[in-house]
Amino acid sequence: MNCSEMSLILQRVREENPLVHNITNVVVTNFTANGLLSLGASPVMANASEEVADMVGISRALVLNIGTLNRELVSSMILAGKTANELGIPVIFDPVGAGATPFRTEMAQLIINEVKISVLRGNAAEIANVLGEKWEIKGVDAGEQQGNNVELAINAAKKLNTIVVITGKEDVLTTGETTYLVSNGHHLLTKVTGTGCLLTSVIGAFAGVEKNLVHAALSALTFYGIAAEKAIEKVGNMGPGSFQIEFLNQLALVTSEDIHQFASFKQL
Amino acid sequence: MNCSEMSLILQRVREENPLVHNITNVVVTNFTANGLLSLGASPVMANASEEVADMVGISRALVLNIGTLNRELVSSMILAGKTANELGIPVIFDPVGAGATPFRTEMAQLIINEVKISVLRGNAAEIANVLGEKWEIKGVDAGEQQGNNVELAINAAKKLNTIVVITGKEDVLTTGETTYLVSNGHHLLTKVTGTGCLLTSVIGAFAGVEKNLVHAALSALTFYGIAAEKAIEKVGNMGPGSFQIEFLNQLALVTSEDIHQFASFKQL
Amino acid sequence: MNCSEMSLILQRVREENPLVHNITNVVVTNFTANGLLSLGASPVMANASEEVADMVGISRALVLNIGTLNRELVSSMILAGKTANELGIPVIFDPVGAGATPFRTEMAQLIINEVKISVLRGNAAEIANVLGEKWEIKGVDAGEQQGNNVELAINAAKKLNTIVVITGKEDVLTTGETTYLVSNGHHLLTKVTGTGCLLTSVIGAFAGVEKNLVHAALSALTFYGIAAEKAIEKVGNMGPGSFQIEFLNQLALVTSEDIHQFASFKQL
Repeated sequence: MNCSEMSLILQRVREENPLVHNITNVVVTNFTANGLLSLGASPVMANASEEVADMVGISRALVLNIGTLNRELVSSMILAGKTANELGIPVIFDPVGAGATPFRTEMAQLIINEVKISVLRGNAAEIANVLGEKWEIKGVDAGEQQGNNVELAINAAKKLNTIVVITGKEDVLTTGETTYLVSNGHHLLTKVTGTGCLLTSVIGAFAGVEKNLVHAALSALTFYGIAAEKAIEKVGNMGPGSFQIEFLNQLALVTSEDIHQFASFKQL
Repeated sequence: MNCSEMSLILQRVREENPLVHNITNVVVTNFTANGLLSLGASPVMANASEEVADMVGISRALVLNIGTLNRELVSSMILAGKTANELGIPVIFDPVGAGATPFRTEMAQLIINEVKISVLRGNAAEIANVLGEKWEIKGVDAGEQQGNNVELAINAAKKLNTIVVITGKEDVLTTGETTYLVSNGHHLLTKVTGTGCLLTSVIGAFAGVEKNLVHAALSALTFYGIAAEKAIEKVGNMGPGSFQIEFLNQLALVTSEDIHQFASFKQL
Repeated sequence: MNCSEMSLILQRVREENPLVHNITNVVVTNFTANGLLSLGASPVMANASEEVADMVGISRALVLNIGTLNRELVSSMILAGKTANELGIPVIFDPVGAGATPFRTEMAQLIINEVKISVLRGNAAEIANVLGEKWEIKGVDAGEQQGNNVELAINAAKKLNTIVVITGKEDVLTTGETTYLVSNGHHLLTKVTGTGCLLTSVIGAFAGVEKNLVHAALSALTFYGIAAEKAIEKVGNMGPGSFQIEFLNQLALVTSEDIHQFASFKQL
């Protein structure tokens, strides 16, 4: 995959405005919707069991996020996910806080067992805990524990038979066979809530227009990291509030030229 | 209605700080509350069936919004709406995403059947679907289908016996007999989530101080569009993030002079 | 308590990044999480009865906020609160809108009866209504009624056997025996939704690192007010949108030097 192909996928997101159905947490709904709109996608949030199957039926991607889960919401996620599977609509799953409580781990594993996940995205601790490894996690943020994220991602991809994205200082993307590292991004993203969640939804938007999901996810990761870098270039050390707003701006402003100039990824 | 009358209503909102009770969706709660505060109104959000009747009883307007509906929430809306009707408190209804799923259409129609709506605000697809016309809608955003919004609004107002506001490139406001067009506004509003929802709540704030609801809604529409125009004048093409923040600023900053200088509406 | 001690507590928040478990309302989740992140704390939101006890068990403070309450949420709050009490984790309670409806007053009192509260924070009307005094409240905002906030706070602290913080033009902090007044802050905070709620969570963050809860709360109040003053100094009268973002910036930027220079509190 090269920068021209990435740019083309971004362009298609902006032209086709794919409808992305998000069943997500109450902390990030607004930021997720604004991020998707800024990028050029069309967000919809719908959780009621009476409508999730219909809503996913008109969508181009489904994003599931357990940040503020409860049993009813998980039921809706599974119902929507199964419908998406039947219709061939990609399902992107963000197991927020898996490992922080037994309930989160259990529900994340239930979703993965019931729904065929296209792309699983989390921090290292979340992915490890989904796999059943006891990796320390701090609430919904990655803990201090360091490990080999590449190995972890490959293990997860093989065991769960899905594309796995582990974000951190460097992002890992793998099918279990093919693995990419992306080094775009900026640590200030960890100071704005929901930047991981929004990334998952942005992967959804890219997956909504590009059938090759490795290409879609890799493009989304690179694009997202570049937007963060451009935002930092603009706001410097003004603070996390200004960064959040400028990041939303940059999701609309990153160009093909930016991708060619700044993309930093490699296949392992 | 002229600009002096509009300015006076805006001034009364800022002086009387009407309490607006919102039963709305989880995507826009924060933005709606901040928009109402910025304007000078006093927002409250309360959904529990145990308290909605009491809360509406101390409010000057009730805003219902089905953006992330479920049956329990709709029950609370109907309970609050019936109480508002008994007390003579205006009810503003935003049928977000009506037509996107059968459940939304059904619930929107249920609310309209059970509650006397003072002002119904939506995009063309939502209003058409509430009326039972199969108009294409894309999630919660207006679809591509073009039609005669004036005719649609007048039909809806007559059939549903309420004031109808259809927002779009031009906004239509009608009682079925008297019709206004408002051309203030800016297309970047569609790149910020909840700007339609917030407009509905702003109509609520204006209706909270002005009994003539056509005047209240027309003033709200014009004021809101001018705020968007002034925001664009300030942030240019910095992006949707900056626009969102400057728009919140302008809701506090639009003056009587701005209304006299920029208001662009006409009676048909 | 002096400015050096305050600065040290702030420094410890930023070094230890205490995990703060918030069971809060859907209007302020995003703003609360961003404010805590900006300050240097680590926010988590979890409401499900299946996990709140586990989540509080890994947290350094628990914040309860009834802004958009329902019975299920209150049950989760009580469960989490009792667990926090057993584990010796401080519980900060924000009785949003107590007095606005009988349901809110009743639920606030239920929580106080079931859970040992470490710090109770509200506006004067909320605290009065929690105490059973019929003090006028306007939705979730303080009403017009003026009273002696110091007396009210001392009464509440004695009756409820907890530290009480009443915020307003001047903030009062009291154990019932020892009382402080803080005059840092800015009235524009009332034009941004959730600034009271976020303050309650910031008190939680400070209480997460400092066992002397009077020192923790007093430091939090002073720090928070200084952040607001510095934000105003930066954005002037640009409007509530810009103030909101700059305030988030300042939560990250306030230094020990700022505390020494700007802190304005006194013991009565």
